[in-house]
Parts: sequence; C-alpha cells; structure tokens
Amino acid sequence: MDAPYELIYYTGVPGRGEHVRLTLEEAGAPYQDTQFLSFDEARQNVTNWLGGGGHGNPPYFAPPLFKHGDLVISQTPNILLYLGPKLGLAGSREDDLYRVNALALTALDGLSNEVHDCHHPIAVMLHWEDQREESKRQREESKRRSKEWVQSRLPSHLAYWQRVLDNDERGPGPWLLGDTFTYADIVLFQCLDGTHYAFPKAMKQARETGKYDKVFKLWEDVKARPNIAAYLASNRRQKYQDWGVYRHYDDNDVVAE
Amino acid sequence: MDAPYELIYYTGVPGRGEHVRLTLEEAGAPYQDTQFLSFDEARQNVTNWLGGGGHGNPPYFAPPLFKHGDLVISQTPNILLYLGPKLGLAGSREDDLYRVNALALTALDGLSNEVHDCHHPIAVMLHWEDQREESKRQREESKRRSKEWVQSRLPSHLAYWQRVLDNDERGPGPWLLGDTFTYADIVLFQCLDGTHYAFPKAMKQARETGKYDKVFKLWEDVKARPNIAAYLASNRRQKYQDWGVYRHYDDNDVVAE
Repeated sequence: MDAPYELIYYTGVPGRGEHVRLTLEEAGAPYQDTQFLSFDEARQNVTNWLGGGGHGNPPYFAPPLFKHGDLVISQTPNILLYLGPKLGLAGSREDDLYRVNALALTALDGLSNEVHDCHHPIAVMLHWEDQREESKRQREESKRRSKEWVQSRLPSHLAYWQRVLDNDERGPGPWLLGDTFTYADIVLFQCLDGTHYAFPKAMKQARETGKYDKVFKLWEDVKARPNIAAYLASNRRQKYQDWGVYRHYDDNDVVAE
Repeated sequence: MDAPYELIYYTGVPGRGEHVRLTLEEAGAPYQDTQFLSFDEARQNVTNWLGGGGHGNPPYFAPPLFKHGDLVISQTPNILLYLGPKLGLAGSREDDLYRVNALALTALDGLSNEVHDCHHPIAVMLHWEDQREESKRQREESKRRSKEWVQSRLPSHLAYWQRVLDNDERGPGPWLLGDTFTYADIVLFQCLDGTHYAFPKAMKQARETGKYDKVFKLWEDVKARPNIAAYLASNRRQKYQDWGVYRHYDDNDVVAE
C-alpha cells in the first residue's frame, strides 16, 4: 500500500508515540507526524481521530493513533505489531512476531506503565506545586510508591532482561533475539531511556552493581545505531518533560536500600 | 499444525488465563490446561516454562504462557492474537486483526489492569487481615483508590464501550465489530464480569443509569452463547477469589457520588 504512514499523537513530550517514531526512524521509513502542530491543534486532532475516522474503524480510547490509508488503529504495541513485519523488524523465524510482541508488551508493562503509575498511584495527580493538603498527600504517596518500585520492581525487571540476554537459545548477538534486531530492542531502549530520566539515581545504582551489564549495553547499542543516533540528535526527538509518561521529581529520585 | 494447544498457568482463580480459556471454549477447540494440577505443582510448572522451553523461545516474565508445538509465548493479548485468526475470531475484513487487538488491549488496560491495581496501589499488599499499621495504611489507600476509580475511571471506560457499540461504522449487530463476533467481545465480557465481582455496587449503579445499556447487553449476550454458557456451568470455570486479578473487599465496594 502506497499510502503514507501517519502518527497521530500529542506534541511536547516523546510519550508512547516515541516507540512508533523510533521504529520508523530505524527503518528509514518516511512518515507524517502531528508533533509539529501547536499543542492545542495536536490535542484537537487527536480528539477528532479518536472517532476512528470511518471506513469500519471503531472509536478508540486513547492515542497514539496510527493511520495507514483507510486503516486507523490505536495502542502502541498494536501499532508496532502492524509495522514490524512491514519494516523488517519483527524477527526472522516463523512465529518470531509473537515472541517479539511478548517482549515488547513486557517492556511496556514493566518499564513504562509501572513507571508512569509512580506519579499518581491513587488518583490523577493534582498540580504538583499545589500546596493544599490533598496535593501534599498525593506527593507523599507518589514518593512512597517510587521507593517501593525502585526497591522491588526495578531490580526484578532488569534481572529479567538480563536473563533474556544471557539465554543461549537466542544464539550469539547483542539483541533480544540474538543477532536479529527487532522492534522489541527499540521498545526496551526507549523504556530504559525514559526510566533513566525518571529515576537517574536508581538506574546509576543498578548499573554499578554490574548485574545488568548486557541490559545497559543494549541501551547503548540501540542508541548508537546510525539511524537512531541521527534521529536522537534531530529536532524530531522531543525532550522529556514532567507531564509525560516519564517524569522526574527530585523527591521521587530515590535509591534502593 | 496438529500439536495441541496448551495453556500454562496457575490454578485456583480465573486470572488472566481466563481470556484464553474462553476463546478456546467459544471456538470448541480442544486444549490442555494446567488448572487441574495442585496449586504448588501448577506454580512450579509455570516457573519451569518461564524459561521459554528452548526452541528459540526467550525467557518470559510472567504467565499466562501458551505452548503450541515448539512455540511458547507469553502475554494474554499476544496469546489471543496468535489464536484469534486460527479460531476464526479475529474479524472478517482486511486488517480487522489490528482493530480487534486494539480493542482487546484497551479492555485489558482499563477493566483488568486498572481494577487489579486498586488492591495495592502503592506496594504489594501485605496480608489483608493483618492488623499492623502498615497493613492498615495499605487498606486505606486501596479504599481511596477504589473510590477514585469508581468515581472517575469506571464511567469513562463504560462510556467508551457504549460509544463503540453506538458507532454506525460497525454496521448492525450486537458485537464490537457489528455482526462479526471476535475475541475482543470475549475479552470485554470477562473484564465486565470480573469488574462486577470486584465492584458489584458500582456496576449496579452504572447499569441503572441506563447510559451503558449496549455494554451490559453485550455482557449478557456473550454469557448466553452456547459454548460459553456450557463452559461457565462446567467445573472448568473457576471461582473468583480474593487473591486473583479481581478481588472483592467489602470496604472497597463503593459507589460514585
């Protein structure tokens, strides 16, 4: 299909759409991106497309959305699943797509959704600078959850990814499926990069244990791939800000005991 | 492939594996299930298979796992994605698989993961009956999160599904894709059923508003499908218990104000 690839998302932070951008950039595939709209225009555009855009597409709950011809779909891992085989980033063996999708879903669960939930574990966060009692309580809950997450969940996730990279079944090579680079590597890179923005002290501490060397090496190896490196140095790579998926709050930047 | 379908999971509650069971049962497809092992045997079996089982499969983070021949995969929506087309439950038009997968992921995010997170929003819950201060605080946080969820998130999710079912693009028919029954309908059914177990008062209240009639009708319609009804009446349908994805705590069984 000759139709352009179109990412429909907010603007101002990398967000969940970043996994889609990185995948397209790695493949050198042209795409349209709504990030260059104004903040309000991008938001309104998302709202319009959440209706599904006709052509048998259902309404969707939340962006990112992805349009290819008449097809409009939502859900980051679903968009990657659609693109992966088309861009040659879904593995090389029969049924690798399902292995890659499992790994991508696991990275997003553990190192994106869980990190995001550290910001407002009970309720949608009131304004962070607000000094009212309810906001103070929410900041305290967010800090407690960050401590708990850094202490118990972060090591569990890093150890899992190290296990994957230690596994002989993959064959040789630095990637999750051995010598075959897939979009699961891209997703894990972006998840590690965002988690590092949110919890730099804990990630430094984890790195210095030496237990997760292959995981941190994968992060560096993806970052150094030519198309990814060129993208990260471009104005298309948006900065993390403290209203996105990954937020840095000094109070929450804790280490494991 | 003539290999049997094998669900590898815990035993004792429906859990996330239930979406896989219901999909296989709807299709009348034979499958093996580890639910008939003892609790400890099932847990040990899961641990063994989390290694991936060789044959190029990576280690996985958590069950449910699904084995078909040499392929072992994890992640509920990934397993359903694998099975859907094989069982004729992934839509009828080109690319419907991606619409169905988007809907299934959205149901699992909103009405499974979010409900589960109401039990221990900050940390992994200590024993619920424990009277120590830390447990009391966690129960209080769980109740606050339940109130917030019932007040703001449940109506948002139910309104979304009603919008999908109101959408003319689907064409006529009671299902998410109109007259084509898919595994997304099964996932939404199980999510509604579990949410009702956890929050019966809030679900009754929502039903009585009359705003979500098509959503509650879909729940009943799936439940009444012959293969599903026979399964639900069988000993293969396990009961909800208060250590599963969906838990009922009287304190958390609140209504919206």
